[in-house]
Amino acid sequence: MTILEAVRAGRVPDDVAAAARSEGVEPEALAAGIARGDTIVCRNRDRANAVPLAIGKGLRTKVNANIGTSKDQMDPELELEKLRVALQVGADTVMDLSTGGPLAEIRRTILAQCPVPVGTVPLYQAAAEVVADGIRGVYDLTPEDVFRVIEEQAREGVDFFTVHCGITRDGVRALENHPRLLGVVSRGGAITVSWMKRHGAENPLFEQYDRLLEVCREHEVVLSLGDGFRPGAQADATDRGQIHELMVLGELTQRAWAAGVQVMIEGPGHVPLDQIQANMQLQKRLCHGAPFYVLGPLVTDVAPGYDHITSAIGGAIAAMSGADILCYVTPSEHLCLPDVDDVREGVIAARIAGHAADLAKGVPGARDWDDAMSRARADLDWEKQIELAMDPARARHRREQSHPANGEVCTMCGDLCAYKTYRDSREGEK
Amino acid sequence: MTILEAVRAGRVPDDVAAAARSEGVEPEALAAGIARGDTIVCRNRDRANAVPLAIGKGLRTKVNANIGTSKDQMDPELELEKLRVALQVGADTVMDLSTGGPLAEIRRTILAQCPVPVGTVPLYQAAAEVVADGIRGVYDLTPEDVFRVIEEQAREGVDFFTVHCGITRDGVRALENHPRLLGVVSRGGAITVSWMKRHGAENPLFEQYDRLLEVCREHEVVLSLGDGFRPGAQADATDRGQIHELMVLGELTQRAWAAGVQVMIEGPGHVPLDQIQANMQLQKRLCHGAPFYVLGPLVTDVAPGYDHITSAIGGAIAAMSGADILCYVTPSEHLCLPDVDDVREGVIAARIAGHAADLAKGVPGARDWDDAMSRARADLDWEKQIELAMDPARARHRREQSHPANGEVCTMCGDLCAYKTYRDSREGEK
Repeated sequence: MTILEAVRAGRVPDDVAAAARSEGVEPEALAAGIARGDTIVCRNRDRANAVPLAIGKGLRTKVNANIGTSKDQMDPELELEKLRVALQVGADTVMDLSTGGPLAEIRRTILAQCPVPVGTVPLYQAAAEVVADGIRGVYDLTPEDVFRVIEEQAREGVDFFTVHCGITRDGVRALENHPRLLGVVSRGGAITVSWMKRHGAENPLFEQYDRLLEVCREHEVVLSLGDGFRPGAQADATDRGQIHELMVLGELTQRAWAAGVQVMIEGPGHVPLDQIQANMQLQKRLCHGAPFYVLGPLVTDVAPGYDHITSAIGGAIAAMSGADILCYVTPSEHLCLPDVDDVREGVIAARIAGHAADLAKGVPGARDWDDAMSRARADLDWEKQIELAMDPARARHRREQSHPANGEVCTMCGDLCAYKTYRDSREGEK
Repeated sequence: MTILEAVRAGRVPDDVAAAARSEGVEPEALAAGIARGDTIVCRNRDRANAVPLAIGKGLRTKVNANIGTSKDQMDPELELEKLRVALQVGADTVMDLSTGGPLAEIRRTILAQCPVPVGTVPLYQAAAEVVADGIRGVYDLTPEDVFRVIEEQAREGVDFFTVHCGITRDGVRALENHPRLLGVVSRGGAITVSWMKRHGAENPLFEQYDRLLEVCREHEVVLSLGDGFRPGAQADATDRGQIHELMVLGELTQRAWAAGVQVMIEGPGHVPLDQIQANMQLQKRLCHGAPFYVLGPLVTDVAPGYDHITSAIGGAIAAMSGADILCYVTPSEHLCLPDVDDVREGVIAARIAGHAADLAKGVPGARDWDDAMSRARADLDWEKQIELAMDPARARHRREQSHPANGEVCTMCGDLCAYKTYRDSREGEK
């Protein structure tokens, strides 16, 4: 019995109870959310070392960090260092997107060392292995290549799969009849379209969706239904191709639920600020309330080097409007594979966005953290401020770098510190 | 005749025509906006070297960078380096908030070297000079001390003044009867309240507002009516003290306009995401459409070290909802006086927020930049992408740090680049 089948039968599986405890919610309430489909609990049945994680309506907004090698940078040790840093600064899930080096070995090591859910895009491994010889192209993939990887990864404990099942021949037509500046910017999407065009065939992951569901069912893998047609430019947001795919994903959500498989939906991408709320509402409506996992959204295209900021802006609005988990974007986006510092910056930026949204949504307990910080500020209690900071090491470093003559204040205002001036003005009042 | 009086009389002063040219709008349209009060053109009549700048409705969102010494860090050369960097990365205005060292000399040097409008908080110089002896406190200030500085700074070319005229005895009562976690967090606000409590007197800048207007009128100084009671904590946002002051500022706006003086209004502060739009609407309504200059808003209190990001999130929503100029917040906020790198990060983060809002508001021309970048991406034209980046040096550095084997792509995806895969899949189609 899968988690979804169990909660429908009125049971509360251990993984659900454990996830409820770490969210501070009632297990029965969480189980009810899973049964409705607006919440998932993520943990592969065959993973020993991962803590089950709940993602969905009313819960704290989660943050995912992508790590993984590429053909140009295939140092597995560096990726493990990124994993450690991502976990240290609070990533809730990690995706291994490796496409260079010994892929299966890298994934196994990450699974062994990672206490939070791990996701993958199985198509990446399949494609990387095919093109590794420098002769074949991604269109030389066979559906069997892809399913072999899917089965292997499910068996070895991957907790969620991003799969671009929503791309169809009709969808490609819809996309290309509403021209874009930047075409297809999803790697999985581009590989899928390339293969379909070369073979004049339907997307195998759409055609053989039931086979995919069977694998997920067996190993309790959550499906993260990918947005292969997500916009990669402000100009391309919310267009026919994107919405066509989203409508297909709505149907696939129903089919997954019918098979007892949990689902979340991936979303855009590059989206102007004023379209984000509509995108969130559309996804919730078309996909029956399934949790929404957004990549960004990036609210401008012109700031490579700072896309952790462009996406924190979009992510905050998205999460306030219904997104449940934010995929981090690092300062390296659009430029290169992130390094360790990028991972730290990316996770923190996404956590800021998620927490700001949690304050706005009134997620229980979220404001306590801010209130404690504000009290520490009123008390000019610097140790407490540092301890409460989202990144205490960074806060301490900056404070120690720039030492005030009077340790009660900071070097910005010195003795003209507003907190101090106001506090002193009230002495004797109380 | 002041700019405001001239446009009311149907004239278009040279400074208005020049500002219109750099905004790409019709001079008559800009003049009409100034006459309505929803737009300002900022340039002290006695400044030779500053380019007049328009701020207001329908125009590109502007960014202000604060620089200046403090008692703990009084190196004027360092502040001039911050000025150069702020201008290089696109600050539209600069405020000299110096409170340490030879204040008048620092200000004169900044005015001489800065081609964009320069603002100050005259109270800072007055207070810093009084407390410099280590014996007197801010409550030893006299109204004449403050007006002497105001007159000197106006005469020497300061383009806009932040003055906390909206704090009144009634306001202090309103503030303190609706208790806050963090009291008064504005330096000017705290000094003013401290002085009022000690002397049991009304705020001199409120009582002698007409005298202030006379100085501004004579030198064409824009009033930036300060928000001394801005919230400094999520818990304190949109409370009685804040709104009381805003209502007073609405009255003071009318009085300034009657005296021929241009006005903008300063706004919060620390504000939860879901309250930002309401704050913008309230300001526009209560202050008769006067331009809104916001400090942040910071959408969470818990991320010292990353407050350029917490404020970029808030600033984007604010600007989309009506704010006209964003005061940058640097990564050092709440920790120390910013360094040169902080200035760069702060300006860029605020520019990202402003530009994202300009896209959402449909400011004419804003989207062209993003579209050009998206075309460069579709063409895999890396030189063009770098040239178009908001910070080309940063983008180039990251690209060059991480070199791909195939120069057509980047090290994130290598040969699995989505742009390339999709482009190749369409070859021969056209």
